[in-house]
Amino acid sequence: MATFRFHDIYSSTVKAHDKTDKGTSEDLYKHINPRTLDVYADLVLVFKYKQPTLKGVAVSKPEYEKKTLAAYQDVLIRLTRVGLQYETRPSGDDTLLIFILCPWAVLKREATRASINDWLAGVKVADTSETEQLLQPAKERDQSLDQLSEADRIRLMSDLITNMPNEGGAGIHPSHHDYVESILPLHDKAFNKSWLKSWSTKWKVNEQDLSRVRDHYGEKVAYYFEFLQYYLQWLAAPTALGVLVHTFGSSFSIFYGVFVIIWAVFFTETWKRREKELALLWKVHNVSKTEMRRPSFKGTMAADPVTGDMVPFFSPWKRWTRKLLGIPVVLGGALALTTVITAVFGIEVFLTIYYDGYLKEYLIYAPMVLYSLAIPNVAAICKSISYRLTEYENYETRGSHEYHLMQKVFIFNALTSYMSILLTAYVYIPYGPQVISTFQNYGISFSSATIDPHMLQNRLKAFMITTQAISFATETIVPWLTRRAKVQAVKIQKEVAEKLNRDTHEDGSLTVLEDSEDAKKFLKRVKKQVDLPEYDVNEDYAEMVLQFGYVSLFSVIWPLTGLCAFINNWVELRSDAAKISYNARRPIPSRTDTIGPWLDNLQHIAWFSSLTNASILYLFHGTIDSTDSHGPRLGLGMLLFTLLVSEHAYLALRMVVGLILDSLPTEAELDVRRREFGVKRSWLSRAGDAIGYGSAGGVHGLAKRADETPDLSAQLENDFGVQAIRSNLKTN
Amino acid sequence: MATFRFHDIYSSTVKAHDKTDKGTSEDLYKHINPRTLDVYADLVLVFKYKQPTLKGVAVSKPEYEKKTLAAYQDVLIRLTRVGLQYETRPSGDDTLLIFILCPWAVLKREATRASINDWLAGVKVADTSETEQLLQPAKERDQSLDQLSEADRIRLMSDLITNMPNEGGAGIHPSHHDYVESILPLHDKAFNKSWLKSWSTKWKVNEQDLSRVRDHYGEKVAYYFEFLQYYLQWLAAPTALGVLVHTFGSSFSIFYGVFVIIWAVFFTETWKRREKELALLWKVHNVSKTEMRRPSFKGTMAADPVTGDMVPFFSPWKRWTRKLLGIPVVLGGALALTTVITAVFGIEVFLTIYYDGYLKEYLIYAPMVLYSLAIPNVAAICKSISYRLTEYENYETRGSHEYHLMQKVFIFNALTSYMSILLTAYVYIPYGPQVISTFQNYGISFSSATIDPHMLQNRLKAFMITTQAISFATETIVPWLTRRAKVQAVKIQKEVAEKLNRDTHEDGSLTVLEDSEDAKKFLKRVKKQVDLPEYDVNEDYAEMVLQFGYVSLFSVIWPLTGLCAFINNWVELRSDAAKISYNARRPIPSRTDTIGPWLDNLQHIAWFSSLTNASILYLFHGTIDSTDSHGPRLGLGMLLFTLLVSEHAYLALRMVVGLILDSLPTEAELDVRRREFGVKRSWLSRAGDAIGYGSAGGVHGLAKRADETPDLSAQLENDFGVQAIRSNLKTN
Repeated sequence: MATFRFHDIYSSTVKAHDKTDKGTSEDLYKHINPRTLDVYADLVLVFKYKQPTLKGVAVSKPEYEKKTLAAYQDVLIRLTRVGLQYETRPSGDDTLLIFILCPWAVLKREATRASINDWLAGVKVADTSETEQLLQPAKERDQSLDQLSEADRIRLMSDLITNMPNEGGAGIHPSHHDYVESILPLHDKAFNKSWLKSWSTKWKVNEQDLSRVRDHYGEKVAYYFEFLQYYLQWLAAPTALGVLVHTFGSSFSIFYGVFVIIWAVFFTETWKRREKELALLWKVHNVSKTEMRRPSFKGTMAADPVTGDMVPFFSPWKRWTRKLLGIPVVLGGALALTTVITAVFGIEVFLTIYYDGYLKEYLIYAPMVLYSLAIPNVAAICKSISYRLTEYENYETRGSHEYHLMQKVFIFNALTSYMSILLTAYVYIPYGPQVISTFQNYGISFSSATIDPHMLQNRLKAFMITTQAISFATETIVPWLTRRAKVQAVKIQKEVAEKLNRDTHEDGSLTVLEDSEDAKKFLKRVKKQVDLPEYDVNEDYAEMVLQFGYVSLFSVIWPLTGLCAFINNWVELRSDAAKISYNARRPIPSRTDTIGPWLDNLQHIAWFSSLTNASILYLFHGTIDSTDSHGPRLGLGMLLFTLLVSEHAYLALRMVVGLILDSLPTEAELDVRRREFGVKRSWLSRAGDAIGYGSAGGVHGLAKRADETPDLSAQLENDFGVQAIRSNLKTN
Repeated sequence: MATFRFHDIYSSTVKAHDKTDKGTSEDLYKHINPRTLDVYADLVLVFKYKQPTLKGVAVSKPEYEKKTLAAYQDVLIRLTRVGLQYETRPSGDDTLLIFILCPWAVLKREATRASINDWLAGVKVADTSETEQLLQPAKERDQSLDQLSEADRIRLMSDLITNMPNEGGAGIHPSHHDYVESILPLHDKAFNKSWLKSWSTKWKVNEQDLSRVRDHYGEKVAYYFEFLQYYLQWLAAPTALGVLVHTFGSSFSIFYGVFVIIWAVFFTETWKRREKELALLWKVHNVSKTEMRRPSFKGTMAADPVTGDMVPFFSPWKRWTRKLLGIPVVLGGALALTTVITAVFGIEVFLTIYYDGYLKEYLIYAPMVLYSLAIPNVAAICKSISYRLTEYENYETRGSHEYHLMQKVFIFNALTSYMSILLTAYVYIPYGPQVISTFQNYGISFSSATIDPHMLQNRLKAFMITTQAISFATETIVPWLTRRAKVQAVKIQKEVAEKLNRDTHEDGSLTVLEDSEDAKKFLKRVKKQVDLPEYDVNEDYAEMVLQFGYVSLFSVIWPLTGLCAFINNWVELRSDAAKISYNARRPIPSRTDTIGPWLDNLQHIAWFSSLTNASILYLFHGTIDSTDSHGPRLGLGMLLFTLLVSEHAYLALRMVVGLILDSLPTEAELDVRRREFGVKRSWLSRAGDAIGYGSAGGVHGLAKRADETPDLSAQLENDFGVQAIRSNLKTN
């Protein structure tokens, strides 16, 4: 039999929440609380052994069995070695679920170690009490775990499992292990339920709500929701103004265009500030420094210049050469994608609007087909290229890897989303007529279609509405349907199996143990979760940043863009919560102190918007619904001049706003400084009289300086200065 | 009689250098060393009392005498209060020289206090030993002064004198005191001599030389020389290439133009890095944080958000509104200056080249007159405006005040230096012909003058050569002459005085005391130094940065510009040394961790150069000495396009270079991190077993993890996992 039963697991988990180490499992039962059923185990390791998983090389069954058993045993040994407890349950005929949990002592040790690492890397603010604690001998120290959040607990554990042994971990990483398919924490049904309930029943998500998310899902996910919420609030401005301009103003309003650029600057700059503030509030500032190496990072062993330990090292020069080599590749990909999009766009325009000849009724559908076939594939290729490149650039930490990957991927995302609007605005409408004439030379008959900026507006409308509808569907409805389908499939399988009356090993194994009913239910839930896809926050970021693009780059074309975005995001804020809770595995909490690549992408978009707004207004302002309507202006010189001006205006504004914000420290910053100063002062006060003027001495100089006026009258009597003054002032 | 004689002063100064506190003045004489004669006293306070210095309000002699005596006494009392010693000597009939010096004990106290302030503000790297010392009680601590440089000593003293009493100083500041004209340290003749000797006899100034300057004149001056040296080295590249292009290539070489832009980027970016490195090497990183408030800073008392002490406060919002209000003013000034320069330029061109009529021979000189009259005055006005504005913006520290002042002043400097070249390049040569024709309409007779780019080259040549010659003269020859003249004047005065046989009080007072011959000589030297102007390093920076402008902005016009600059700077490096040593008072050493505004000015010039080079090449490439000569290209569209491209290329390059350099830590940075880590590790090692895996635990995880393989065979026998694997792999 295994070392213990679920109730042991449960009690030791309760211990993890508990302050005290003492107490038998009996009195611990008092703490039992149905809400925490899902926390029977902290993490589940999915061990797959269906043949031939062994790198495609087919091997004989007995040999394979030996290998599998060895691998399984290896996993257990590694877990035991770092002091983790486990309990295995088979699931289906090719999977083992290894429930891992962390006894309180181990958790405490890991927490201590983590806090020290943080302190060493300068993550946490040196807090008097904390620092003092570090200097205390063990028995006196009480590393209380009550400030340890759910997220922290799971993060510490998964680090302990995945880190390399030389970094103090068990060294079990899915990407490195043939049998370990994945490691996942389990959803807290109760939490998710209350989360969704509270968010779906209130209009405005507040700080507490967000901090709850952080405690449960960790900083990385929390940052996304913070950003989404912040962005939603900022959208209010362009929404309101957009509605006004749309109803009362003329289209292509210069006023609105200028406003949008300014808005974009303020939004990005203030978010930078907000982001820093959060990092300080959450004590994750500088956290990237503590990141462990990626398992797939390749480096030659060398002495760390700072700590002197031998560590894998990869020359930044090499990395930079590789990066620079990558640039042309990315550009090539971008070019290819652009050409494809342009081609499809051309055909579409031609067929839908002008073509009037043979087979029109069928050909009309060609563009959609092309679009849905060609572009996704090309985009996919481009993305795989960027994956390869980033892997090749060989980054040391997951953070920097992700950063550079997303930077590349986003280029392609942006192209696919914005290209056809750009084409309409800068090529089709201005130069459409010439295009037609050229076609006419080839004697193709045309339906008389007027080319005017309304097309541009319609295209944007279509994009805003369809894309958002689609994304909503793909994120919430589709997964739900597929899940339903799966369930059905499984049921049918079972029935078949039962018809062939051989009970699946799952049931077999379950009957073997006298698990409680709870436990059985629990196992079922776990299997469901294992089948879910992993959650990638970057996809959500991409969606939001691209949307920000539509607003800041193009909303001057159709001022209601902001409104669409606003509504969408109000829903998004909730649907994403649902997505994480039910349509994805529970993500392993990870820390971060920035939204990383997405901040830069936002800024690049904002910069670019200073060009699009200026040029669109230059081309189309007053082309429609005004008394003196005229075609788009085409003077290159003036256009470039407009661009030059608006871009430099943008840069100047950004600089000023940035400087202003920097000159105003956030409350969080002040708080940090206060505490740092507190630490130093407290140290000083000990050395107090040592320096002669106690703790208050220091930044503001001597506290008390002898204030009595020395009596110099005696000396002054025959001081050369006094004599000189007297005689001189007499004689003058 | 005064409290002591010079030999006492001398001995206590020796004490200041000495490690030990004990020993009678007798055995201290052993240390006497003729080289240090000039260090009789550390600082000299110049006390002027010629009537009516009392804010212009004439007062009766006795009253004025009383006031003066009171003021004098006040000064002495303040000095005594902070523990400084003094000795007064009259000089002339309206000046007292108060020789101040700092007993060892006081210096020790100040040094300690300063090091604590630095530590509190996070300037110095927390060094184990240092920090430990701070925590020792006084008697055990030995604040040794041997790492205290000459510069540090003087800086500490002048701070002690000028700081406000609530900041622990004597609160004597020339800007705040009617009688205190100035406070200056005395030149070290011997040092200056050896300095000049060594530099003028070697081709290349090396690190040691520069560090000697730093120890003697402080970081601020040292930074200037470091920069000058660094810039000189970097000039080698454009010099060499320039010569090649000039001799073999054609003028307006595109290759050279591109090179210059790239060069400018690399120079500015690498200097940034070098600057940081120096700050770390010199332990002045973050030093700006310890700066005391400017005496002229006006603020309402408020609690410091960090330390909680009551301090004068000025809202950054107010400051920003004032700044923004200032912008139009500065622009106005710039506009005015521009118009004046343009007008003069126009007249000059007209008279010198075209005008052929009545009174030509006299009118030819009009431009010079105008130039020398109008422009300096307007520039002066503009500068005084910027002084006012900066004062109005009310900055807290001298550093930030200087920064924003220099930013403004530089705009006017740049205009005066570059405007006429810009006019020639972008207005005169392209549009000259039209101008002529317009004039001709007014029936003014013209000498036939051909307008071609040679003019541009000639103008630049003239600027490079004349300006540099002038600056050399004004910096070295003129001051020397004026000094000579002064000496003569004084002599004559004396003779007159003697003729009227009333001996000046100076002699009178000197005869009163039995000062040594040395002392007499010394007093003469001091008077000489008091008469010298103060040294302002910013003027030298301005000169260099403007010169950098000529090279990066315009050298594409005349590639030998680099060569001129190179030669000039080789001399400059030495002549500036001479200037500081002999043509100026010894500057009070002050610390800094950057060349501040000048770095930004450099970057703005570099940015701007991406525009000038592109446009000049676009306009003039191939206009002369090529087979297919043609007039300047005038297509606005293409020109703007060229600008757009080159500017964005510049920005991209700058970004990449910046990123690359950031990713490569300097040796100094690593050293700092190493020591920080050392401190933390040493603290850890104490708490060693407390955490369970000693000091090596931390960033790289558990040092030793139990490596013995736990024996699981017993459990594995009836582990559900093992059973499942066995059964499944059999049945498959």
